[in-house]
Amino acid sequence: MTKTPSQLQLNDRGELTHLLTLEGLSKEHILHILDTAQQFVAVSDSDREVRKVPLLRGKNVFNLFFENSTRTRTTFEIAAKRLSADVVNLDIQTSSTAKGETLLDTIDNLVAMQADIFVVRHKTTGAAVEVAQHLPPHVHVINAGDGTNQHPTQGLLDMYTMRHYKQDFTNIKVAIIGDIVHSRVAKSNIHALTTLGCPEIRAIGPESLLPKDLNMMGVKIYNNIEEGLKGVDVVMTLRIQKERMEAGQVPEGDAFFKEWGLTKERLQLAKSDAIVMHPGPMNREVEIASDVADGPQAVILKQVTFGIAVRMAVMSIVVGN
Amino acid sequence: MTKTPSQLQLNDRGELTHLLTLEGLSKEHILHILDTAQQFVAVSDSDREVRKVPLLRGKNVFNLFFENSTRTRTTFEIAAKRLSADVVNLDIQTSSTAKGETLLDTIDNLVAMQADIFVVRHKTTGAAVEVAQHLPPHVHVINAGDGTNQHPTQGLLDMYTMRHYKQDFTNIKVAIIGDIVHSRVAKSNIHALTTLGCPEIRAIGPESLLPKDLNMMGVKIYNNIEEGLKGVDVVMTLRIQKERMEAGQVPEGDAFFKEWGLTKERLQLAKSDAIVMHPGPMNREVEIASDVADGPQAVILKQVTFGIAVRMAVMSIVVGN
Amino acid sequence: MTKTPSQLQLNDRGELTHLLTLEGLSKEHILHILDTAQQFVAVSDSDREVRKVPLLRGKNVFNLFFENSTRTRTTFEIAAKRLSADVVNLDIQTSSTAKGETLLDTIDNLVAMQADIFVVRHKTTGAAVEVAQHLPPHVHVINAGDGTNQHPTQGLLDMYTMRHYKQDFTNIKVAIIGDIVHSRVAKSNIHALTTLGCPEIRAIGPESLLPKDLNMMGVKIYNNIEEGLKGVDVVMTLRIQKERMEAGQVPEGDAFFKEWGLTKERLQLAKSDAIVMHPGPMNREVEIASDVADGPQAVILKQVTFGIAVRMAVMSIVVGN
Repeated sequence: MTKTPSQLQLNDRGELTHLLTLEGLSKEHILHILDTAQQFVAVSDSDREVRKVPLLRGKNVFNLFFENSTRTRTTFEIAAKRLSADVVNLDIQTSSTAKGETLLDTIDNLVAMQADIFVVRHKTTGAAVEVAQHLPPHVHVINAGDGTNQHPTQGLLDMYTMRHYKQDFTNIKVAIIGDIVHSRVAKSNIHALTTLGCPEIRAIGPESLLPKDLNMMGVKIYNNIEEGLKGVDVVMTLRIQKERMEAGQVPEGDAFFKEWGLTKERLQLAKSDAIVMHPGPMNREVEIASDVADGPQAVILKQVTFGIAVRMAVMSIVVGN
Repeated sequence: MTKTPSQLQLNDRGELTHLLTLEGLSKEHILHILDTAQQFVAVSDSDREVRKVPLLRGKNVFNLFFENSTRTRTTFEIAAKRLSADVVNLDIQTSSTAKGETLLDTIDNLVAMQADIFVVRHKTTGAAVEVAQHLPPHVHVINAGDGTNQHPTQGLLDMYTMRHYKQDFTNIKVAIIGDIVHSRVAKSNIHALTTLGCPEIRAIGPESLLPKDLNMMGVKIYNNIEEGLKGVDVVMTLRIQKERMEAGQVPEGDAFFKEWGLTKERLQLAKSDAIVMHPGPMNREVEIASDVADGPQAVILKQVTFGIAVRMAVMSIVVGN
Repeated sequence: MTKTPSQLQLNDRGELTHLLTLEGLSKEHILHILDTAQQFVAVSDSDREVRKVPLLRGKNVFNLFFENSTRTRTTFEIAAKRLSADVVNLDIQTSSTAKGETLLDTIDNLVAMQADIFVVRHKTTGAAVEVAQHLPPHVHVINAGDGTNQHPTQGLLDMYTMRHYKQDFTNIKVAIIGDIVHSRVAKSNIHALTTLGCPEIRAIGPESLLPKDLNMMGVKIYNNIEEGLKGVDVVMTLRIQKERMEAGQVPEGDAFFKEWGLTKERLQLAKSDAIVMHPGPMNREVEIASDVADGPQAVILKQVTFGIAVRMAVMSIVVGN
């Protein structure tokens, strides 16, 4: 019987050995990751916020990016180096797969070269799962984004950020605005928030950008941004992923901003201490106004910093198990 | 008087200062490398097979790849990092040579930047030799493949693998199958096996893929794979290097496999404990059947692991001398 | 009121926090950098000339190269690694800026990823200044070349080299030959030499390659190379930057060499112990004769070695302040 991704990411003792998806990942596992990450964030308010530790000295982390993403690759590279691991970046387009070798043969070879962790980014749903199924027990996979499916470390850093500012998931309302149908981030967030007991998740956007199954996931749908923002604690805007869209699917540029952009005025409908999040990279004046992005409620750059700590946590946990 | 590559790779005290070729390299030098590599391979059967050691801390290793080879570059990068060296990968196509600088001026500059080891891969025969001739005595070259000429670390890791499984070179028969004429690996292996006292080396393949001078090197030629495999201890299949071939030189795909592919049935003609080797990357169902590649006699991935240890050995030896 | 680059590179205590330009940088700051660099150069004449030290352990250096320059990037990468920093090379052409993110948003994100130093190379004048203006006080910029404007670490390594061979700036004559108008190096050198009290700086070249304001900077102009070389202590040749020139601006190849190339005969007009410098990469037999480039007076490769130490000095100083 084939294991689901959620089962596959746990070892025989029920410990996390890969990170493939937040769907089905237990509250205990998520909180363990957040607690571990917290240890890597310096307690003081000094400038160097994330510590360097020798936890992964002598370990090899391979960044396998089949889809270009400098930002995500860099965060994993930095996280691995902060753990004192050796990092090898592999440009897969120019590698042995071009010489007639299969993906799994390439993986086998990298394992034989003493890989400990693979960070996998691929445009195909399930790519990281396929790699995980193939690996011996002492080698670990972290899904760094597979198609429009999952991007679990982004979801986890968002949970870290919400907990940092709001402490408790069980009494907050979270609004996610924009291109949810193409967003791995939204999907990962909805799974994690549900698991952590968030009582109200809202999806705001035009019908063309909302997946059909949101209702089934317990998400409230708003086709009007003003309505959706009322009284929420967390506002999460998403990047308009033009490169994944068909023509005419969404009003372009100014028109989108007019209808769905997060402006200062609209933000005032949320709670006065609501935080504004964005997974980046931002399209200013498309999904978010510049004065909101740079305003006092925005925690967008904190998300990036916490992302380093969360990736350190995931890597050290899977290797430790 | 110009030194031969074999002379050039030894310093005044007869110690290895570069690794350019296995042709003419003495038995003592080869065994010293294999013995050193063995110290880097963990004695236990634990998962982490190759140790990290501080032998090259503070040393600079430059990967100079004029020809793309992610796999070989990665093995050298990992080996250097396991020795705690600093590694710089140079994409030569985009470097100063494009601004009118000669190769040797580039080398001089990198030496001035405190290079300790150059790992050189080039499509031209003799490129690593040319670099070695130019270097001051404290800087070292390792040939990572020059055209169809030599690939000495691959030859050495093959020797390591054979010794690991067969202990003694003086009572084994080794069969090499396929595209020998384009293979740096085959050439390096034949030199090393001869030096180490292997009594019988066989070359199996169509006439168009066998070099003319094999007889002179003491190699037995078989134009029939079944004949060639009878009673051997080691079967080494080679990758069909389509990119180096002219049209019509070799039967394509299925036709090649039918006549020269290593199948389960054919393998039964070899000794029952014969090992199957391949330098990778493999073309499954072209030169080797999948069930052989993944079968119990295959040691193909062990070759990769031993390759890390052998490269560590070569780097630490040339720097130590 | 906007700060000048020269003011911007100092913090409130007047200490160097960025390195943007040599224009306006005080004698004390320059000498502090040269003295610090000297500590990284081994005192003995052993082969390993530049030491590895743990001064920047746990710090993150980002190489932001918007313009390709393998040589300069490599020197900064090596310098950072000799200081035990973690280095991340970013290929900006393929990064998030391609996804609609602004340069300053990218910078903000990298700061949030715990950047300590940005090494910035850009084809636009003032790019490094723009980055510096945007950064929080604990993050530092080093200008690695902005258009035809400044290349301050090159200027500093030239000062280091001159001081190494001539000890005192106040009694030497320096001749700069060739393409001064396109040369960041020449500009940086003229500023630094003037600050350090050099009594005579000469510019030698065809009118089309000399900037109009040289006179105002106190530089003596020579349109005849023989005249210009007479009695100088330092001869600095520059690379003909064909890629920045318009057609017909300069005599090509042989014709340029005949009129402006540094030959053995011409060099004899300088002092007998004059040193010959070149920022590299060289066009042999265009701006410099091969026998001069390889001759006993050339210190061109020493410049490269000293460049590692100078870049280490700048990085450790800005982080220390």
